[in-house]
Amino acid sequence: DFFNALDEVKPLFGVAEEELSSRIRGGIIHYSPLIDNILAEGQLCVTKIKQPVSENSNPLHSAILFGPRSSGKTALAAKIAIDSEFPFVKLLTAEDMVGFGDMQKVAHIDKIFRDAYKSPLSIVVIDSIELLVDWNPIGPRFSNPVLAALKVLIHKQPPKNRRLLILATTSKRTELQQLDIFEDFDDEIAVPNVNTQQELAHVLQSSGAFSEQDQQRTMYEIARYMADNRRTDVGVGIKKVLDSIEIARKDPDVAGSDDSQWNGLSYKARMQET
Amino acid sequence: DFFNALDEVKPLFGVAEEELSSRIRGGIIHYSPLIDNILAEGQLCVTKIKQPVSENSNPLHSAILFGPRSSGKTALAAKIAIDSEFPFVKLLTAEDMVGFGDMQKVAHIDKIFRDAYKSPLSIVVIDSIELLVDWNPIGPRFSNPVLAALKVLIHKQPPKNRRLLILATTSKRTELQQLDIFEDFDDEIAVPNVNTQQELAHVLQSSGAFSEQDQQRTMYEIARYMADNRRTDVGVGIKKVLDSIEIARKDPDVAGSDDSQWNGLSYKARMQET
Amino acid sequence: DFFNALDEVKPLFGVAEEELSSRIRGGIIHYSPLIDNILAEGQLCVTKIKQPVSENSNPLHSAILFGPRSSGKTALAAKIAIDSEFPFVKLLTAEDMVGFGDMQKVAHIDKIFRDAYKSPLSIVVIDSIELLVDWNPIGPRFSNPVLAALKVLIHKQPPKNRRLLILATTSKRTELQQLDIFEDFDDEIAVPNVNTQQELAHVLQSSGAFSEQDQQRTMYEIARYMADNRRTDVGVGIKKVLDSIEIARKDPDVAGSDDSQWNGLSYKARMQET
Amino acid sequence: DFFNALDEVKPLFGVAEEELSSRIRGGIIHYSPLIDNILAEGQLCVTKIKQPVSENSNPLHSAILFGPRSSGKTALAAKIAIDSEFPFVKLLTAEDMVGFGDMQKVAHIDKIFRDAYKSPLSIVVIDSIELLVDWNPIGPRFSNPVLAALKVLIHKQPPKNRRLLILATTSKRTELQQLDIFEDFDDEIAVPNVNTQQELAHVLQSSGAFSEQDQQRTMYEIARYMADNRRTDVGVGIKKVLDSIEIARKDPDVAGSDDSQWNGLSYKARMQET
Amino acid sequence: DFFNALDEVKPLFGVAEEELSSRIRGGIIHYSPLIDNILAEGQLCVTKIKQPVSENSNPLHSAILFGPRSSGKTALAAKIAIDSEFPFVKLLTAEDMVGFGDMQKVAHIDKIFRDAYKSPLSIVVIDSIELLVDWNPIGPRFSNPVLAALKVLIHKQPPKNRRLLILATTSKRTELQQLDIFEDFDDEIAVPNVNTQQELAHVLQSSGAFSEQDQQRTMYEIARYMADNRRTDVGVGIKKVLDSIEIARKDPDVAGSDDSQWNGLSYKARMQET
Amino acid sequence: DFFNALDEVKPLFGVAEEELSSRIRGGIIHYSPLIDNILAEGQLCVTKIKQPVSENSNPLHSAILFGPRSSGKTALAAKIAIDSEFPFVKLLTAEDMVGFGDMQKVAHIDKIFRDAYKSPLSIVVIDSIELLVDWNPIGPRFSNPVLAALKVLIHKQPPKNRRLLILATTSKRTELQQLDIFEDFDDEIAVPNVNTQQELAHVLQSSGAFSEQDQQRTMYEIARYMADNRRTDVGVGIKKVLDSIEIARKDPDVAGSDDSQWNGLSYKARMQET
Ligand SMILES: Nc1ncnc2c1ncn2[C@@H]1O[C@H](COP(=O)(O)OP(=O)(O)OP(=O)(O)O)[C@@H](O)[C@H]1O
Ligand SMILES: Nc1ncnc2c1ncn2[C@@H]1O[C@H](COP(=O)(O)OP(=O)(O)OP(=O)(O)O)[C@@H](O)[C@H]1O
Ligand SMILES: Nc1ncnc2c1ncn2[C@@H]1O[C@H](COP(=O)(O)OP(=O)(O)OP(=O)(O)O)[C@@H](O)[C@H]1O
Ligand SMILES: Nc1ncnc2c1ncn2[C@@H]1O[C@H](COP(=O)(O)OP(=O)(O)OP(=O)(O)O)[C@@H](O)[C@H]1O
Ligand SMILES: Nc1ncnc2c1ncn2[C@@H]1O[C@H](COP(=O)(O)OP(=O)(O)OP(=O)(O)O)[C@@H](O)[C@H]1O
Ligand SMILES: Nc1ncnc2c1ncn2[C@@H]1O[C@H](COP(=O)(O)OP(=O)(O)OP(=O)(O)O)[C@@H](O)[C@H]1O
Ligand SMILES: [Mg+2]
Ligand SMILES: [Mg+2]
Ligand SMILES: [Mg+2]
Ligand SMILES: [Mg+2]
Ligand SMILES: [Mg+2]
Ligand SMILES: [Mg+2]
Repeated sequence: DFFNALDEVKPLFGVAEEELSSRIRGGIIHYSPLIDNILAEGQLCVTKIKQPVSENSNPLHSAILFGPRSSGKTALAAKIAIDSEFPFVKLLTAEDMVGFGDMQKVAHIDKIFRDAYKSPLSIVVIDSIELLVDWNPIGPRFSNPVLAALKVLIHKQPPKNRRLLILATTSKRTELQQLDIFEDFDDEIAVPNVNTQQELAHVLQSSGAFSEQDQQRTMYEIARYMADNRRTDVGVGIKKVLDSIEIARKDPDVAGSDDSQWNGLSYKARMQET
Repeated sequence: DFFNALDEVKPLFGVAEEELSSRIRGGIIHYSPLIDNILAEGQLCVTKIKQPVSENSNPLHSAILFGPRSSGKTALAAKIAIDSEFPFVKLLTAEDMVGFGDMQKVAHIDKIFRDAYKSPLSIVVIDSIELLVDWNPIGPRFSNPVLAALKVLIHKQPPKNRRLLILATTSKRTELQQLDIFEDFDDEIAVPNVNTQQELAHVLQSSGAFSEQDQQRTMYEIARYMADNRRTDVGVGIKKVLDSIEIARKDPDVAGSDDSQWNGLSYKARMQET
Repeated sequence: DFFNALDEVKPLFGVAEEELSSRIRGGIIHYSPLIDNILAEGQLCVTKIKQPVSENSNPLHSAILFGPRSSGKTALAAKIAIDSEFPFVKLLTAEDMVGFGDMQKVAHIDKIFRDAYKSPLSIVVIDSIELLVDWNPIGPRFSNPVLAALKVLIHKQPPKNRRLLILATTSKRTELQQLDIFEDFDDEIAVPNVNTQQELAHVLQSSGAFSEQDQQRTMYEIARYMADNRRTDVGVGIKKVLDSIEIARKDPDVAGSDDSQWNGLSYKARMQET
Repeated sequence: DFFNALDEVKPLFGVAEEELSSRIRGGIIHYSPLIDNILAEGQLCVTKIKQPVSENSNPLHSAILFGPRSSGKTALAAKIAIDSEFPFVKLLTAEDMVGFGDMQKVAHIDKIFRDAYKSPLSIVVIDSIELLVDWNPIGPRFSNPVLAALKVLIHKQPPKNRRLLILATTSKRTELQQLDIFEDFDDEIAVPNVNTQQELAHVLQSSGAFSEQDQQRTMYEIARYMADNRRTDVGVGIKKVLDSIEIARKDPDVAGSDDSQWNGLSYKARMQET
Repeated sequence: DFFNALDEVKPLFGVAEEELSSRIRGGIIHYSPLIDNILAEGQLCVTKIKQPVSENSNPLHSAILFGPRSSGKTALAAKIAIDSEFPFVKLLTAEDMVGFGDMQKVAHIDKIFRDAYKSPLSIVVIDSIELLVDWNPIGPRFSNPVLAALKVLIHKQPPKNRRLLILATTSKRTELQQLDIFEDFDDEIAVPNVNTQQELAHVLQSSGAFSEQDQQRTMYEIARYMADNRRTDVGVGIKKVLDSIEIARKDPDVAGSDDSQWNGLSYKARMQET
Repeated sequence: DFFNALDEVKPLFGVAEEELSSRIRGGIIHYSPLIDNILAEGQLCVTKIKQPVSENSNPLHSAILFGPRSSGKTALAAKIAIDSEFPFVKLLTAEDMVGFGDMQKVAHIDKIFRDAYKSPLSIVVIDSIELLVDWNPIGPRFSNPVLAALKVLIHKQPPKNRRLLILATTSKRTELQQLDIFEDFDDEIAVPNVNTQQELAHVLQSSGAFSEQDQQRTMYEIARYMADNRRTDVGVGIKKVLDSIEIARKDPDVAGSDDSQWNGLSYKARMQET
């Protein structure tokens, strides 16, 4: 259930790990076998770096998790990184660089990679590349110095006896492809939305937010709404689903009442937005 | 009536609150049930942050009020913020950053968010995002560093035990969508114009500016004007309506006379402009 | 007549007033009722700020005078400002900012508004916005920082008990509309060219530059020229008309002779240019 | 003849005058009545500034000489300025600003105008505006700060009791029109090429470079060449004509020989280039 | 076999050589006669510089290796450089310039060439020109100062008695052609992918990663996959092939099992990507 | 023959002359009468400056040599400059400005012209204008400040009693025309490729690189290749021809063998590239 999912986030030492753990606040709910596949694929990347076949094995591997907004990319990358138990794991995020100029950003990024090169085994999680490069569809505009630095660092061989795994995330696959950086990664890992009603039910149940009865009514309403609108996919990111559950709990019409109308409407609204 | 509406602005302590209150100089006139809906929706956002369901609830929520120019977006956001009675409420406005360079602006914005992170419960009102980012349709041009900073800060998790509500306003929804920042908000709240003749009459009456007779004549003229021009919507922002009322009062042709012609024409002119 | 028109410029005290008066060097010739309308509309704006209806009245009003080159926009705005007898009147012009960088310009503009906020009643005349923002149709290019600052300042509420009227002028209405700043003004006041032969005759007479006979001959020639070219409008700005009168006086063919041919041709040339 | 033309450049005192005189190294050859018209029109501008009709006369006048490359624009503007015998005459040329940044250029230009404002009567010759603003057709690119400064200075009223005439030159009329600065001038003066064979003959004779016989042969060849190519215009700038005459003199085939073939061909080549 | 290939990388002295050697970590596998051709062509360039025909022979030669991503361009350029046994060999790579501004980059590049000019015989390997110039297809954007510096340096004659060979690599031939730098090289050397099944088998065998049996099964699966998809080319870069081999070894399904399914799928996936 | 051609480069004194001489390393081979024409035309320019007709002669002349890559433009300009025996000759080349910013470049260029103005007779060779202005076809991009400085300096009159000849070279005529600088030169001198088989034979022979027999075979192969491909022009620059000759000498297949196959192919390849 929901709290078991949370338990999967094991206590860790060090600031960087804490920062990573904070990205899995909502736990990892195994609502679909695809989630296990993603974690397994991540595990394989980790193993490749951890246990090289030979001295001449490539000491660098890079993978990018892509998928729609709120689909859980950062949480999954953080999970893979934490579970690796590498001595150096680090989150590279635009949040730490607000107010930096282009050159400061590049210096900060470069610093993180230099730190990584000091540890025999490292993981750098490059979160939301589109935000790192200040991507904007109008123009389009973006920070070419930051992008160019990332392109180079993704391919830069670590020094002797150092091995590095790079995990990146993005919700702008097409844009990164235009920017010609998507292909720079060795692996591409797709992260899906919550798509079927079954998956959604799994999440609702794990969250433990509703009584059995409320949950069934909610699912029924959603099913009807989807039928009416000839939609086959739920198509909402896990983060949005979890957020909606919380709002629903706050809604006076739901809590302590049988009328979950507003709640259902809210889901509909969110689905329409997508 | 008009002064009751004004009374809704309760006295508040602190500079930031005063700044917010000054945005509701014209009070909040409940000329349509939609106004109540908007305030309720804002209230729900406040509650979500104020009373988290669990320790792991998302401590961050963001909503954007959008609508035509002068429709009352800033006033409504200020009202929601003031009524929250959060210990930290702050207006982030371009007016405080005239003459700042891009990097200074980002630093100022970052500072406001850092201050917010110090309070257990905070609201930041980001007023007129299009002005903050120096949006200009020619080019189009805008400040990409400021925009990128906003994008990051809207999603940045507050530190432990800090909860933050972000309320933004804009009259350039389409432009913000192009800029790919509109979807970054969890909620979208539409703010309408004064649209029906009934709503307009409500506002006129609340303002107490005209005698019963003058008001009826004005409404009649407007109705005729609209019929002549096959217009069905009044379609004027509340701020413009209130301003026009004041100009009408100044007009010697109206004050103390039965001839409110100019006044009616003025409305027409304003409606045509829209 | 011409010198009566000049007399309308009353002596004023203070440097700012002198600068404004220097813009009415050619006086205000009432060659058309539209000129009176413009001045009346300006007067109404002044009254709105001078005598607020209530404590909560909007303490800010803005109007923009637009029209063809040389049509007298600056002179009319200066006239309205001078006649207001407000304690603070100030001309904001690109001429005072030659050699300034963008940020210096913004600082200068901001300073003028800050000064205005110190006086209970103020008028700021923003002359030729297109020049202030370095507008150039190729590109198009313009100073986005200056423009963005103006946009913000036009809407910025003065502090408590301060009231401000903003008068702007431009000969580039369409361009300002593209720049999305034209709609930011509460009022739009059109300033026309000298358009009819009657109006032109009025100006010629007011100027006192020609003998009765010369004037009639000139008017006759112009009428014939217009007929020949199937033009119905004179369509020349008042400033150009007054300049041409002066050149005509210098022309040896006119002064002391009956042959005003060159003079007439000059008008024609100027009309064709338009 | 040629040396009489040179004599027209009277000795002058002061550095600025010397710089201006150096622009008339080839004298002013009156090869066409249009040349006299241009000088007369310039003279009229000078008079307007020198002898104002009244106290309120416009103390500022501006004229722009435009025409094809090498047509003599700078020489004619220099001639008008020198002949004015104003106490302050100054050439504003890109040659004095090589290696200046935009802001330095603007400062230099501004300085020259400030100096001009110190003299009761001044002429500023703005040579080759397109070079001053670094115009380049690709992009197109140009220095918007310099252009914007010029636009402002062309209209800036001199202080009390100061009168200023601005003479500008350009071979890029269309481009300046696109840049929206051409219309800023009060007068536009067209400078033509040497266009007819008669004009060309006049120049050849004035130059005294050829014997009567050589000259006739040259003219005959040119006539035949033009007939063969169905050209009706010579269409070469006076500066190119004078340069070609000098090269022709150097050519061993011409000097001391009857065979001016190469010489004729050279003219043809130059005409084709145009 | 695979380790013989590795042996080809002879021990070398000096830091620069070590850096170059590290680019041949995977050895040079002679999987196709084209590889020998490339090395021979490189050898010819070396000889041209090493043994000039005469004193007046051109002391500068430049060649560019181009081909798809991961096809082995850098390794081959490094091999040619190392085998030259020139006293000065140097790798110029974007990796050493992360965080440099444009001007710093140019200074760094210039420094390397200046160092090269000090040695009688030198090779500069310019790796991945597209990364050096921060090429980005959107815009497109790139560092024009760096590009311009490279263009000049590629043609700059070394000082007297100094001879220089420039070897460059790129996977963006078309882009460099657009940038007008591709033609600046004297020689163009194409580097192919691993294209035929035979070549792939050669690489698999050289790697010694699989048992005879596993290898045959893998090849069989790939052949079937290609037949099914009507593909005739393998079309994968040597670096990707070697990387896939390593991942395959890590995969528990392959190691110690007969089921190499996942492994085969991985190849397919990689082929589809291309 | 080849060594006679080299002999034409006379020993000269001074650093600048040495730099210029180094550009004629391959001598000047008179493979076509056009080469003599070019040198004669250059000579005429020199004479015009050296022996002015009168005091008022234009003390400035400029010519530009244009033609395909490697066609010998720089060598020919250097030859003309050296043969002038002017006290000041200077090569202005991008090679001396690697790593300079735009303003440093302009300062350097300006310095060279200032130095030239100190000598009574000077030649400045502006080599490869397209490289000086960092021309790049994408965008297109170029250094407008450098270009603008060149435009001004090409027309700037030297001070009294100073005479200056400017020789420029470019392989980007069309681009310079777009940049509007090509027409700024008084003369345009076309430099051709080696175009006919006869010319090519002349060069081969002059080079003395092949035995009579090898040369005939090479020419025969080239003729056949051209016939097969219906090419009528050789169309290769003299520099490429001389380089190919050297490579051919190095090629083991040619040296000491009858099989010049590779050699011939190499020519073909080079021709195809063009
Ligand atoms: N199976 C799951 N996969 C990913 N996240 C999950 C899963 N189950 C629960 N979560 C929770 O859902 C949230 C996912 O949010 P996260 O920030 O990772 O999404 P995201 O795709 O990175 O969003 P964005 O597009 O904004 O970057 C986290 O709080 C995480 O703990
Ligand atoms: N129902 C209402 N909603 C909003 N504002 C109201 C309402 N009734 C009265 N007002 C008054 O109308 C004015 C609304 O102006 P406000 O600046 O908020 O508009 P805005 O939409 O933010 O305009 P802008 O597009 O210029 O930002 C305020 O003075 C407010 O006090
Ligand atoms: N009725 C009038 N309206 C305006 N100006 C008048 C009038 N009568 C006379 N004038 C004189 O005409 C001149 C108008 O010039 P002004 O600079 O105001 O024109 P403008 O429209 O601002 O020109 P620009 O387009 O160049 O800014 C002034 O000298 C003014 O004194
Ligand atoms: N009638 C004339 N008008 C102008 N210049 C003349 C005339 N007769 C002789 N000249 C001589 O011709 C030359 C004209 O050159 P000038 O530099 O003025 O041409 P320009 O049009 O300014 O050229 P550019 O287009 O390069 O600026 C001068 O040397 C001048 O002395
Ligand atoms: N025949 C070969 N040619 C080139 N490289 C080979 C060959 N055989 C094995 N290798 C190995 O393959 C790898 C080629 O990688 P390399 O970095 O040179 O490719 P690349 O084309 O430069 O890639 P990128 O496009 O990323 O620059 C090296 O590790 C090299 O040792
Ligand atoms: N007739 C000739 N004309 C020019 N150069 C010749 C001639 N004969 C031999 N050469 C030699 O050919 C070479 C010409 O190279 P040069 O650098 O001048 O060509 P370029 O056209 O300037 O090339 P680029 O387009 O790269 O600038 C020189 O080494 C020169 O000595
Ligand atoms: Mg994320
Ligand atoms: Mg607002
Ligand atoms: Mg004006
Ligand atoms: Mg000129
Ligand atoms: Mg490589
Ligand atoms: Mg050259």
